[in-house]
Amino acid sequence: MAYIQRVKVRFDHVDFARIVYYPRLFAYCHIVFEDFFENEAGISYADMLQKRRIGFPIVSAKADFRSPLRFGDVCRIAMEAIHIGTRSLGTRYRLYLNETDRLCAQIDVTAAAINMDDFTPMDLPDDLRRVFGKHLAASEPPG
Amino acid sequence: MAYIQRVKVRFDHVDFARIVYYPRLFAYCHIVFEDFFENEAGISYADMLQKRRIGFPIVSAKADFRSPLRFGDVCRIAMEAIHIGTRSLGTRYRLYLNETDRLCAQIDVTAAAINMDDFTPMDLPDDLRRVFGKHLAASEPPG
Amino acid sequence: MAYIQRVKVRFDHVDFARIVYYPRLFAYCHIVFEDFFENEAGISYADMLQKRRIGFPIVSAKADFRSPLRFGDVCRIAMEAIHIGTRSLGTRYRLYLNETDRLCAQIDVTAAAINMDDFTPMDLPDDLRRVFGKHLAASEPPG
Amino acid sequence: MAYIQRVKVRFDHVDFARIVYYPRLFAYCHIVFEDFFENEAGISYADMLQKRRIGFPIVSAKADFRSPLRFGDVCRIAMEAIHIGTRSLGTRYRLYLNETDRLCAQIDVTAAAINMDDFTPMDLPDDLRRVFGKHLAASEPPG
Repeated sequence: MAYIQRVKVRFDHVDFARIVYYPRLFAYCHIVFEDFFENEAGISYADMLQKRRIGFPIVSAKADFRSPLRFGDVCRIAMEAIHIGTRSLGTRYRLYLNETDRLCAQIDVTAAAINMDDFTPMDLPDDLRRVFGKHLAASEPPG
Repeated sequence: MAYIQRVKVRFDHVDFARIVYYPRLFAYCHIVFEDFFENEAGISYADMLQKRRIGFPIVSAKADFRSPLRFGDVCRIAMEAIHIGTRSLGTRYRLYLNETDRLCAQIDVTAAAINMDDFTPMDLPDDLRRVFGKHLAASEPPG
Repeated sequence: MAYIQRVKVRFDHVDFARIVYYPRLFAYCHIVFEDFFENEAGISYADMLQKRRIGFPIVSAKADFRSPLRFGDVCRIAMEAIHIGTRSLGTRYRLYLNETDRLCAQIDVTAAAINMDDFTPMDLPDDLRRVFGKHLAASEPPG
Repeated sequence: MAYIQRVKVRFDHVDFARIVYYPRLFAYCHIVFEDFFENEAGISYADMLQKRRIGFPIVSAKADFRSPLRFGDVCRIAMEAIHIGTRSLGTRYRLYLNETDRLCAQIDVTAAAINMDDFTPMDLPDDLRRVFGKHLAASEPPG
């Protein structure tokens, strides 16, 4: 049910402690969010912003970091929708170590839908509601 | 009561939407956390890690993003301690636009104290408890 | 002859001018260099550093930037070896826009080979000389 | 004669080898270039781009890296103009370790002047020619 994507931990993604610098893990989630559009919604994130003129600024985020990721690891990310609101979208990312079940981080991110021309809120379009709805977390009652 | 520090929004800190990329705001908070050691605790963060061998990996973070920051802005950050536990430290960062009262983001970050030699948990040293205690949020009962 | 790899221009890779921030293009080349090891040399870059204990710090770099890359573009990178010295390795990266012939940047990077245990120079191992030799630029006389 | 500015090496500026990731050193130079406008030219770089509508995309860069910078170091940067052309500006950055004479890197960067409205080349304005001229490298004949 979850959308799965892998992100490689690069040479420069780690900090002095030689684990992935934690703000970078939010960036990993954003990569997954971007590519979800291209892979599942039939439109690249760049086109969504530039052609359809819909943007998704982040309004809140919440993360638990349980186990570090290191240079050479692959971060396997499972994304689910946890809230499909009228004008907002909640997504959950579970970040796993390589192909194991070790959960390294769980990150919840809420985005608003906005008109890219004037940065005003707008309703989440139906086609996006449907495509994120296909990846709705099991524990979440249908919106 | 809060520890105050300013971070400039640089040319490359913004994303395609021309607002600061949200993971970068966590990095801003980390800069403030790093410099707090040098400015308030009498030891640089680098020396804390390398000489005193104490590290502070982030175990959780939680953020509300209310108003964007843009290239040319200065992000004024007020840091307070919100929890001084035996082995963990909760900090709250309020990010303001320039010298105004506009709150752009509020970010809570919890760090654990670890021994940098073996990455095992350790007690937060008393001197750090004291120095963070000087910046304990008013709404927080003394630990 | 060149080793080819593609890097996507992400939402946050651009600067305020909405073109890829130029230091990021060096990072793109480093990604290609890292993955070359895994894809062509039969050992990941992480293992090369951590297990074989050989590192490749950059000693010089030189770049011409001809045409910008933008959010949503794919940067197609062709890497060749241009100098395979006793203790150093020169690589050239040509960065193209998507699948076109538009050359966006040409970047030459020279790395030294060092022992990761003591950071002292070492000879480039023969197996690496061979594998980079397979991608030697045509204009370069064999080393 | 050179314009001097310091940049702190942050916790996340280093790579797995625990030295500053080399693309980051170009970013350090860009920070100095940005602040030079505010400190010496009487206009912030953000205002130069947004209000005066003049931008400075980088057309070439060339760097020698001689000695690594590490977490906790301060990178002391001396910037000079080495070429003040009609439509381009060459700058040289010498990056030193803390307050010592150890030269860690020398980086030459050439920027073009462009109109930010249509991205077309434009002449470097006289006031900027003057202010960069005050920091012209001694070895360079006056432009």
